[in-house]
Amino acid sequence: MNIQTIQDRAIALKNNRAFELFVVGVIIISALLVGAKTYAIPDAVSQMIVWLDVGITFLFLFEIIVRFIAEPNKKRFFHNGWNVFDTLVVVVSLIPIDNSDMALVGRLVRVFRVLRMVSIIPELRMLLNSLVRALPQLGYVVLLMFIIFYIYAAIGATFFAPINRELWGDITISMLTLFRVMTFEDWTDVMYETMKVYPLSWSFYLSFIFFTAFAFLNMVIGIVVNVLEDEHARERAEKDEEEGNASMNDLRDEIQELKSMITRLEQRGSSNQ
Amino acid sequence: MNIQTIQDRAIALKNNRAFELFVVGVIIISALLVGAKTYAIPDAVSQMIVWLDVGITFLFLFEIIVRFIAEPNKKRFFHNGWNVFDTLVVVVSLIPIDNSDMALVGRLVRVFRVLRMVSIIPELRMLLNSLVRALPQLGYVVLLMFIIFYIYAAIGATFFAPINRELWGDITISMLTLFRVMTFEDWTDVMYETMKVYPLSWSFYLSFIFFTAFAFLNMVIGIVVNVLEDEHARERAEKDEEEGNASMNDLRDEIQELKSMITRLEQRGSSNQ
Amino acid sequence: MNIQTIQDRAIALKNNRAFELFVVGVIIISALLVGAKTYAIPDAVSQMIVWLDVGITFLFLFEIIVRFIAEPNKKRFFHNGWNVFDTLVVVVSLIPIDNSDMALVGRLVRVFRVLRMVSIIPELRMLLNSLVRALPQLGYVVLLMFIIFYIYAAIGATFFAPINRELWGDITISMLTLFRVMTFEDWTDVMYETMKVYPLSWSFYLSFIFFTAFAFLNMVIGIVVNVLEDEHARERAEKDEEEGNASMNDLRDEIQELKSMITRLEQRGSSNQ
Amino acid sequence: MNIQTIQDRAIALKNNRAFELFVVGVIIISALLVGAKTYAIPDAVSQMIVWLDVGITFLFLFEIIVRFIAEPNKKRFFHNGWNVFDTLVVVVSLIPIDNSDMALVGRLVRVFRVLRMVSIIPELRMLLNSLVRALPQLGYVVLLMFIIFYIYAAIGATFFAPINRELWGDITISMLTLFRVMTFEDWTDVMYETMKVYPLSWSFYLSFIFFTAFAFLNMVIGIVVNVLEDEHARERAEKDEEEGNASMNDLRDEIQELKSMITRLEQRGSSNQ
Repeated sequence: MNIQTIQDRAIALKNNRAFELFVVGVIIISALLVGAKTYAIPDAVSQMIVWLDVGITFLFLFEIIVRFIAEPNKKRFFHNGWNVFDTLVVVVSLIPIDNSDMALVGRLVRVFRVLRMVSIIPELRMLLNSLVRALPQLGYVVLLMFIIFYIYAAIGATFFAPINRELWGDITISMLTLFRVMTFEDWTDVMYETMKVYPLSWSFYLSFIFFTAFAFLNMVIGIVVNVLEDEHARERAEKDEEEGNASMNDLRDEIQELKSMITRLEQRGSSNQ
Repeated sequence: MNIQTIQDRAIALKNNRAFELFVVGVIIISALLVGAKTYAIPDAVSQMIVWLDVGITFLFLFEIIVRFIAEPNKKRFFHNGWNVFDTLVVVVSLIPIDNSDMALVGRLVRVFRVLRMVSIIPELRMLLNSLVRALPQLGYVVLLMFIIFYIYAAIGATFFAPINRELWGDITISMLTLFRVMTFEDWTDVMYETMKVYPLSWSFYLSFIFFTAFAFLNMVIGIVVNVLEDEHARERAEKDEEEGNASMNDLRDEIQELKSMITRLEQRGSSNQ
Repeated sequence: MNIQTIQDRAIALKNNRAFELFVVGVIIISALLVGAKTYAIPDAVSQMIVWLDVGITFLFLFEIIVRFIAEPNKKRFFHNGWNVFDTLVVVVSLIPIDNSDMALVGRLVRVFRVLRMVSIIPELRMLLNSLVRALPQLGYVVLLMFIIFYIYAAIGATFFAPINRELWGDITISMLTLFRVMTFEDWTDVMYETMKVYPLSWSFYLSFIFFTAFAFLNMVIGIVVNVLEDEHARERAEKDEEEGNASMNDLRDEIQELKSMITRLEQRGSSNQ
Repeated sequence: MNIQTIQDRAIALKNNRAFELFVVGVIIISALLVGAKTYAIPDAVSQMIVWLDVGITFLFLFEIIVRFIAEPNKKRFFHNGWNVFDTLVVVVSLIPIDNSDMALVGRLVRVFRVLRMVSIIPELRMLLNSLVRALPQLGYVVLLMFIIFYIYAAIGATFFAPINRELWGDITISMLTLFRVMTFEDWTDVMYETMKVYPLSWSFYLSFIFFTAFAFLNMVIGIVVNVLEDEHARERAEKDEEEGNASMNDLRDEIQELKSMITRLEQRGSSNQ
């Protein structure tokens, strides 16, 4: 059996609908196992889960190998982020684990296997990609928001640290506290505490809420306008494709032709005289 | 009196405006009774409510029978979800109740009678239908959100269960806790507790808030774009219906006609020579 | 001096810019007095405020009389809700107050004088009118929301009343508790309490949050679509007003004329032969 | 070396890309120093920070002087708000500080240096300008919101002050409490307290939430409509620029020409006879 035959078989298997459904089924079972392990379960079931887990790992390994063989250009296989992710998850699952620190990493990797659901369903992959695409556009708003957070956290840490080290101890803790204020989570408790020392500190909180709300609004509007523009572009493209409808330019061409016809008529009339 | 006569009378009664208003009135009274029963009321009134309740049940039974007889195609009657719902509510109300467990079910069914308000007012039925129609479109966003919840709940249950079994005991409890975090409800209490053991666990909460906020935004935008598209389609349809306005194609046809007229003129000119 | 002269003077005074600014000034002072009275103030200042208050009341009375006399059609004066409101506020302010119960009403009326700011600035009146206009359109969504609240409150009062009478004692208290859940205000405390007795009661809260969020979203979208439609209608109207631009129909008329010209040419050609 | 040469060199330096990056780098280091000072740091590092701080202050002073010399019109330099801000920050940093009160101001000024990041990155400056531009348009909504707050705060301070002086002591404290209610922060605690004395006071809170939510919605819609209009205007401008596309008016002109050609033909025909 030569290499070409193996690759053809791998492609056939990869595109096989039954194999695809089987892989989705295995992913769902692996997700359920992850959930099951969080319950207090009898030892017998626990042992069964371990065996199932090993089985799933090897099925995933087999599937990755099939996809790798099926890929005509081996180099391009690892250019796809999802392939790299799938391979990493399988490889880390294969490492035998001894001490408890690594055990946690092992469990974590098994959790991330659930993300393979996203990698295998194209619609979910699209949703996640749209998030990644939207990020750079919003980069400056995020930067502005970070600067607002940084300045307020620096002020907060400078003035309020002696009042409550838990909330305003240093600039990173202060930023976390400000994020809490932004989500309105018990923010008045934070404010009332500092108002006892600095009675005017309410203006610190209110201005912060105002600025972040504005920046956030900007971000949402940015996304909405983007989505509507994409929508618009799509609609226009569709419209152009619709055949049979006359465009402005078609009409002008028709009228041009009319003119030359009349001109001809005129000239003939002249030569006729 | 033959069956046809009965059916005709049922149809007449069903379409009678006074009967319709009477049914709405009975539904409102039944809703008020449900509310009244939650107050501490004297026994005499309580007894009256029981009798009123029986009366309402039989009125509803009568109305269902009228609607069933009025329906020309008996089979189609139960294809309508609202008819099935109305029938079920009446039938369960008729079952005599003895022990206390069933009594609760009986009370619940009486509460659901208020939903008949939705089934009888077409505008409310439309609003509810629009919810049901919107769901499948948003299916993938809901699925993505569920996967995000599942992964974070699995991580949470794996690492935080020893810290607080009430919040992170197993994967379902963890998902409830994460829903709470998403609504910003005392989420910092949850975070501060785990940060004592894992100082970096704030990144767990912040990334979760970011991902769910993004998925939620996607959902809202999806709905808004949908609504605007429907609006657009409706507007275009209206525009097309408006008579008397010339379309691009009308203009082209007119110009085509002009051309053939000139061509005729030309040919005549030639034959004239 | 006859009645006509008085009316003319009243109209002149009412339309006088200085008088208008003076009234706005008096309203602002009356608003500041309302605020000042909430502070602990020395008796001398307090006495001065009482006298200022009497002065303002009589100035408002004078202004209402001027507006009433200036109105050509006396009957229409009270058809305007804002006039009725202004008159009521002044009349109630004039009633001498003895016992403490009435004193509170008197203070309340003085607070409502601040609302005169809205009645005198047209832009604010428009904003408030837009609220009133938007309400009936959203009537069915509000009704649906009320039914959702009513059903959930009835279920809550039926099952959870023995657990916590403060929150679920009767149907009105339950509706208030549900409003609190909708605003996510310590809703988990409410939920955890009932989950101890009914472990599945989380589904009650989650479904309620889902339904109200959906109804609320519907409401917001309704308003946004409305606003955009108004915007659209305004834009189209503006476009139509722009002169000099040829419309489709203009073009068709031009082409029709062309045709009849060619037809004439053709006929002449025929008669010419 | 004459003045002209100095100015030319200043302009060359100001527009030098390396110098620009160097200034951004210094701003970032100054921002990091501000953050570092909030941590407990050994004395040696602390001393180093003081020297770095002096260095940064003089670098900023040098940069401002370069920018001032490079400006051809010296008067216009201080018409730019950002230049005034930069100068103020540097000047205050230069003042030697002795007592502890001034020390706090000095630290605050160093924090505001981070804002120079906004002044130096054009995209961030645009985002902040858009906030400033949006404010006056929303002026009336903000005024309406302030009136709503003022009226409710006056009512709250009048009735609830004896219940809880901390929350309803005077009108300014009451407005802060109402802002808290608007953010849904433990608002039910505030409500339950007053409901013990005035059982109907829930209507105070619910109506307040309703009014502020409406005003806020108005504000958001105002911003969105604005953004969309800007977008529209931009799109239309782009469309007009696209060359080669026939407009309605072009078509009409073409048809007009056609007509005059036929008229000529007709006249010739007449003269021909």
